[in-house]
Amino acid sequence: MFRARYTASVGPSWISYAQGVPTLRIALAQANPTVGDLAGNRERARALVAQGAAQGADIVALPEMFLTGYPVEDLALRPSFQAASRAAAEGLARDLAADGLGDTVVIVGYLDRLDAAPDQLGRPRGAPVNAAGVLHGGAVVARYCKHHLPNYGVFDEYRYFVPGEQPCVIRVRDVDIAIAICEDLWQDGGPVAQARGCGLLVVINGSPYERNKDDVRLDLCRGRAVEGGFALAYVNMVGGQDELVFDGDSLLVGADGDPIARSAQFVDDLLVADLDLPTGSRPDALVIEGAEPLRPPVTPLVAPRLTDAAEVYGALVTGLRDYVDKNGFASVILGLSGGIDSALVAAVACDALGPDRVFAVSLPSDYSSQHSRDDAVDLANRTGLSLRTVPIAPMVDAFQSQLHMAGLAEENLQARVRGVTLMALSNAEGHLVLATGNKSEISVGYSTIYGDAVGGFAPIKDVPKTLVWELARWRNAQAESRGQTPPIPERSITKPPSAELRPGQVDQDSLPPYDLLDDILDDYVERDRGAQELVGAGFDPVMVEHALGLTDAAEYKRRQYPPGTKISLRAFGRDRRLPVTNRWREST
Amino acid sequence: MFRARYTASVGPSWISYAQGVPTLRIALAQANPTVGDLAGNRERARALVAQGAAQGADIVALPEMFLTGYPVEDLALRPSFQAASRAAAEGLARDLAADGLGDTVVIVGYLDRLDAAPDQLGRPRGAPVNAAGVLHGGAVVARYCKHHLPNYGVFDEYRYFVPGEQPCVIRVRDVDIAIAICEDLWQDGGPVAQARGCGLLVVINGSPYERNKDDVRLDLCRGRAVEGGFALAYVNMVGGQDELVFDGDSLLVGADGDPIARSAQFVDDLLVADLDLPTGSRPDALVIEGAEPLRPPVTPLVAPRLTDAAEVYGALVTGLRDYVDKNGFASVILGLSGGIDSALVAAVACDALGPDRVFAVSLPSDYSSQHSRDDAVDLANRTGLSLRTVPIAPMVDAFQSQLHMAGLAEENLQARVRGVTLMALSNAEGHLVLATGNKSEISVGYSTIYGDAVGGFAPIKDVPKTLVWELARWRNAQAESRGQTPPIPERSITKPPSAELRPGQVDQDSLPPYDLLDDILDDYVERDRGAQELVGAGFDPVMVEHALGLTDAAEYKRRQYPPGTKISLRAFGRDRRLPVTNRWREST
Repeated sequence: MFRARYTASVGPSWISYAQGVPTLRIALAQANPTVGDLAGNRERARALVAQGAAQGADIVALPEMFLTGYPVEDLALRPSFQAASRAAAEGLARDLAADGLGDTVVIVGYLDRLDAAPDQLGRPRGAPVNAAGVLHGGAVVARYCKHHLPNYGVFDEYRYFVPGEQPCVIRVRDVDIAIAICEDLWQDGGPVAQARGCGLLVVINGSPYERNKDDVRLDLCRGRAVEGGFALAYVNMVGGQDELVFDGDSLLVGADGDPIARSAQFVDDLLVADLDLPTGSRPDALVIEGAEPLRPPVTPLVAPRLTDAAEVYGALVTGLRDYVDKNGFASVILGLSGGIDSALVAAVACDALGPDRVFAVSLPSDYSSQHSRDDAVDLANRTGLSLRTVPIAPMVDAFQSQLHMAGLAEENLQARVRGVTLMALSNAEGHLVLATGNKSEISVGYSTIYGDAVGGFAPIKDVPKTLVWELARWRNAQAESRGQTPPIPERSITKPPSAELRPGQVDQDSLPPYDLLDDILDDYVERDRGAQELVGAGFDPVMVEHALGLTDAAEYKRRQYPPGTKISLRAFGRDRRLPVTNRWREST
Repeated sequence: MFRARYTASVGPSWISYAQGVPTLRIALAQANPTVGDLAGNRERARALVAQGAAQGADIVALPEMFLTGYPVEDLALRPSFQAASRAAAEGLARDLAADGLGDTVVIVGYLDRLDAAPDQLGRPRGAPVNAAGVLHGGAVVARYCKHHLPNYGVFDEYRYFVPGEQPCVIRVRDVDIAIAICEDLWQDGGPVAQARGCGLLVVINGSPYERNKDDVRLDLCRGRAVEGGFALAYVNMVGGQDELVFDGDSLLVGADGDPIARSAQFVDDLLVADLDLPTGSRPDALVIEGAEPLRPPVTPLVAPRLTDAAEVYGALVTGLRDYVDKNGFASVILGLSGGIDSALVAAVACDALGPDRVFAVSLPSDYSSQHSRDDAVDLANRTGLSLRTVPIAPMVDAFQSQLHMAGLAEENLQARVRGVTLMALSNAEGHLVLATGNKSEISVGYSTIYGDAVGGFAPIKDVPKTLVWELARWRNAQAESRGQTPPIPERSITKPPSAELRPGQVDQDSLPPYDLLDDILDDYVERDRGAQELVGAGFDPVMVEHALGLTDAAEYKRRQYPPGTKISLRAFGRDRRLPVTNRWREST
């Protein structure tokens, strides 16, 4: 811990606008870092601070772990990365001073390390902390370490960090400001309780998007502000990182709980607002003095919230775009069957990347219907993506001449020939392959491993089938309302879903109706309700046992499924971890 | 917590053999549960207790989470499973009483639940505990909850359990006995410190195998016994569970630290020994009285330790056998190239399952050498596994007639045609497909996703290439020393490794020599050493950057690789978690 014992004197004392009521201008930098790109994130932070300073901000706050990106997973344990992250924070402070921005107080998240002994097993893992650095006058003048470490859902922060124990209060423009990081805000006690007596609590966040959160963040911020008697600034990351999407939604509330400013979701933003706050009196505050900037008053933005469908669609677009761009792919490729899943993925991809970067392949077999082929062409025409056709019969025949497969083995063979074809085109042309499975299919294992499941990313893997239809309708309606061509052919939305791997096949031959199935899966997968509870809630016992049994048996397939954007309370992957070898079966 | 306030009186008081020195007979049941198979594990426990009682044991101790299997991962969070596990413990106690074994004191691990409020997010996750139940007289008479929850490496116990806070001491045959669970033994303070004053500490474990542990368990047990002045009984699980293998190695040491008894590794065992222990005086001991069994003295087993190679090979055999059997597969199938990796996997599979359950396919292409085909046939003859040949040229040609691939895309196409063929045979005939990649390849991405990487299980994924050769030589030497035919053709061991995906290709065209590569990967993957540290240790900077860069870039492939047995300090998978989207590259 190297906070305290710092007094800068780099200019005249600040003057408040109103007598006895200091006015603080804060800028919340809702921005999109890339994991591991310390140099790039540092340059981005430097530019954001310059923008904030140009708008007269006294303080610029950037998200949790902004300099490293978030989450960095096991990189947090690597001494070379810990050292490089600390150096990035110190380097950023120096850069800002060199830019003449040393007076601006910057709060930024990064990975740091307590200089302590190795852990109890003698491993040289050090003692990493999830830190917020306070940068001023060319140096990191204070450091706050996250107290409450989330260790549920997608979070494993007990694995990665040791908890901080000290509050961190700074005094800027005579206002006492406490700092907290993400989970700290959600837990009673700790830094939020310790912020009492401050004028402002600044919370830096890496808070992932989840559906149906019902504006819980705003409610929480309002409640905490009123409880503690301080204004509250909440700055969140935007952008995608593997399975996670951060939606931003940064906001400021007054000590009365009233919203003052709010950023839109899924976009970069610099949210600037003035706060009239009481003069500080905390004896433990680190006093930071600086120059008086010139500044006319600002009118803070209060962005409206998105609708549920727009929010989910925005998450899918952001998740895919950032996976593609941050991993350096120029383009994506997917199999376009004419069905609704690949149609929605194609629409999301065109919105994320532009149709010039989207390549599709129609891979018809003898069982493919004419309307499916037509619908694929129709979608290509509507969106402008590139479509080519590769009939799979010759390859399937070559396998069959040696292997003579029938039934399910033959169905899987067709799917795998399609998978090999997509991967070959990916290898030859450099596209990222997209898997087009939805959450309902992936739950019950209604997909072919190494077949339709191939891909580097699976944009809709956390979207249940019923929501796939809803999003398709929503996206088409959006286009219509703007006078644009709806991207998805109507027939792809209305026709009964089919894998077309044998004549006349439809999904409902093997599965319960999707509206019922999705209800059951929501209860089982996302809420951990057992079979008896489901039957008690009125579901048919046979259907429950069928759906749960299929879901349990498909664990091995999910283990090898590509990552995709999490939108639900519990996504498959790091959010829901079950053994493959598992004889537990729910019984009614 | 339902311990305390229990006094059984189901027979006359016990009589010690030596005046003032009670003799306790303990049986450590080193056994193999199956995750989720509550009924099966319970029946197995019942049989083991009967065996122990028949040998006159006062106490039978079974491993950590034996009734549920271990680790159960997110099943721990499911209320229906928590309830079923508690019911299994209570049911086992009743079964034992019905069997006339109510006097035997049983210590057994299971999942239980603190009846507490939902967690801080309002989720109905309950408060699961990693519990040891004390069963006696038809009931669970005491419960100990694990205090120290490991949350590193493969362990996520902060996610799954709340920590216990109370010690649990029982008095059996006048001896005070404390209970602890696995990680508790490794940590200073807590239950081990609280056991002071007891005659015996019983530690039940689910402690996975790792190479090069150098008998650290025995040293720990000796140290703890001397420190606390008590005898120590350590009972560990055996068997495989997905990536993990438990090696058993159960043991007993006296209060002077001297070993009294020890089970062999990787085998089921009931380790029975007599202990002369001081009369108990702990005021908090739960007194358990019972009948005096008839018993001649026993001579405890002290099994010798395996050599390093035998240990690793035993782990691989156990891990594969249990994955296959616990998942209900009758047989396995693998591609047999004539190279060393598939040869070792075949040998392990034959040892694990018997050659009748092992099916192999030679999948020659135009680039396959005659010696490779011959070596595959030779291995089949040596081991007795079933081999068939499916030339891949017709399928590759069918793809090529439409796709015209060259270079790496053509190489991958061949590997994927092989993958599709193995999967087709798996679908048609029900075999589990084995992937044959080794850790060196999987590190640097020298494998084809959906090609040679297909499979439900990857037996040697955590075995570096140099160790692959060592194990192959060891296995052949073992056979020779027993007068058996060595399973692996000598040429498969001695020839330069090649993927044979283009004419004259050898691995060393693209990769550093394996002895150097494995040294670098050991430092980087297992020990988190950065590039500068590696160069400081004397490695060539160009080679370091090359190997580390390849390893970082292959993360997306590893994410979709099948699970396989962990033998190292840090295996790929849940043991090493890195983001796919990650621009951090180590530089020298």
